[in-house]
Amino acid sequence: MPRWESDAQGRLERAALELFETQGFERTSVAQIASAAGLKERSFYRYFRDKREVLFAGNELEAHLVAQVEAADPGLTPIEALLTALGTAEDIFRPREFLLRRGRVIAANPALAERDLIKLADIADALAPALERRGVEPGKARFIIDVVLAIHRRAMPRWLAEPDSTLAQLMAQAAAELREAVTLPAPTVR
Amino acid sequence: MPRWESDAQGRLERAALELFETQGFERTSVAQIASAAGLKERSFYRYFRDKREVLFAGNELEAHLVAQVEAADPGLTPIEALLTALGTAEDIFRPREFLLRRGRVIAANPALAERDLIKLADIADALAPALERRGVEPGKARFIIDVVLAIHRRAMPRWLAEPDSTLAQLMAQAAAELREAVTLPAPTVR
Repeated sequence: MPRWESDAQGRLERAALELFETQGFERTSVAQIASAAGLKERSFYRYFRDKREVLFAGNELEAHLVAQVEAADPGLTPIEALLTALGTAEDIFRPREFLLRRGRVIAANPALAERDLIKLADIADALAPALERRGVEPGKARFIIDVVLAIHRRAMPRWLAEPDSTLAQLMAQAAAELREAVTLPAPTVR
Repeated sequence: MPRWESDAQGRLERAALELFETQGFERTSVAQIASAAGLKERSFYRYFRDKREVLFAGNELEAHLVAQVEAADPGLTPIEALLTALGTAEDIFRPREFLLRRGRVIAANPALAERDLIKLADIADALAPALERRGVEPGKARFIIDVVLAIHRRAMPRWLAEPDSTLAQLMAQAAAELREAVTLPAPTVR
């Protein structure tokens, strides 16, 4: 059984998702989530700051990605190092079915959609120093991160829908799509 | 005098920026902003929903960009149409000195930085149907928008720092930088 299914954090996440789906995000309280997970309300706050945070899994993903970039082969270009790091993220993701349900709940709730955006920006902020330590100028580091996050966003729905593909394969496919789109003639500059 | 300097909305924006700079975002009230702009507090809410919104200029930029994409030459590729549309945004931007000060205030206040992210996502959402009407599949439309917004984000600080360059020129330069970064050999897929 993966770690997240056995521990309190995972139980809270699954209980929250279930309640958000059945009775809505607004009408669900922290007390209800804790109770459905068989925990005291106080325990909830040991893992999450608030009700919105429960679908955003602490800083595991961020820490994993930063460590992957730090450990990447120095011979890789910055974009390769990032693509490789993000391609390994599926190792620590929740099961696809959980992520699909989670994605639907987030899309339906503006407060959760906003938190999702902020989390992504936090991840971008955390990755920048790791690229800079590879000698990339800060503005360029942020640019490459934004582009690779766009590639990741393109690949994720396909990965969720295609159980036989790896995220790394689908990100490589999206990167190829980008390569094709940008190697067409550039627009005339006025 | 540009329209925004003469009207109530522009006066509120400049008054808010000044107050956020001198006494901080948290310590500034809507009443103070309205008073500094020579208006009643009630008038503030005719233009802006809340104190955070005052630095995000309504939907002017979004409406401008959507109209530019709709009007773009049908012969342009989707990425060219978007780059061209964003390159014209400087026509409706505030003066660079205002934007520089605004950028610093936003970066220093998490609540404003979050609103900035959300506004950008709203612009991306608004642009997607305009690209889809050009025959682009929805997932690909969003991908291209994300990439072009990354190009825009790369070009903006340079545009703010280099008064002799046009935004269109600097976006073309960032697009060339991206082309170079993605045409290097792709990482090996495991």
